[in-house]
Amino acid sequence: MALETVNLAEKFAKFNDHWSPKLVGELNGQHIKLVKLQGEFVWHHHDVEDEMFFVVEGNMRIELRDKPAIELNAGEFTIIPHGVEHRPVADEETLLMLFEPAGVLNTGNVTDEKLTNEVEQI
Amino acid sequence: MALETVNLAEKFAKFNDHWSPKLVGELNGQHIKLVKLQGEFVWHHHDVEDEMFFVVEGNMRIELRDKPAIELNAGEFTIIPHGVEHRPVADEETLLMLFEPAGVLNTGNVTDEKLTNEVEQI
Repeated sequence: MALETVNLAEKFAKFNDHWSPKLVGELNGQHIKLVKLQGEFVWHHHDVEDEMFFVVEGNMRIELRDKPAIELNAGEFTIIPHGVEHRPVADEETLLMLFEPAGVLNTGNVTDEKLTNEVEQI
Repeated sequence: MALETVNLAEKFAKFNDHWSPKLVGELNGQHIKLVKLQGEFVWHHHDVEDEMFFVVEGNMRIELRDKPAIELNAGEFTIIPHGVEHRPVADEETLLMLFEPAGVLNTGNVTDEKLTNEVEQI
């Protein structure tokens, strides 16, 4: 997964499921993943890892417990520090690129039907 | 630098210099930087760190010593593993997002006039 051109649109065309991140790059122990969101995810946090959400297409919000939600449109990102409980919500289908350490579980501290244990490489 | 929306276009509007990465995010010991390229950079490699080049606007190529150059257009990225000598070239002004460990020097193993010792946060 290196020394090649990775085209995001081509990678996004390879899958249709929601909330299931796909691995598209790896560097320095970090993973680059693509995911499609639609609807509401589960409230969760990550004990150790910070997470970056970068919106490639669409728009979403990341709800927080005691603060206003973070609104994200295409070309915008945010970083959710470890320990911060959050819930991603996308009213329409939204395409995201994620940066996070290898081994992060998408549902963090929660075991949920949306848990993706094995991340597929595409 | 967390729990806020970072808009890439707004950040890119804040600077005009070339080859001088600006810090826009930090997570898990990794830096997210924005940089504008135009022209040819110096041949260099990084002893330890892999580097990700994501093209936000424009197009560029990353020349390699013994292989064809990697061509990158907007919406495309590549990862240059540590140890691989490379030279970024952009014929027209090109806007990039970089993802790399904190502390990476832009010129890698080379001391050059393009070296940015202190990365400005914007």
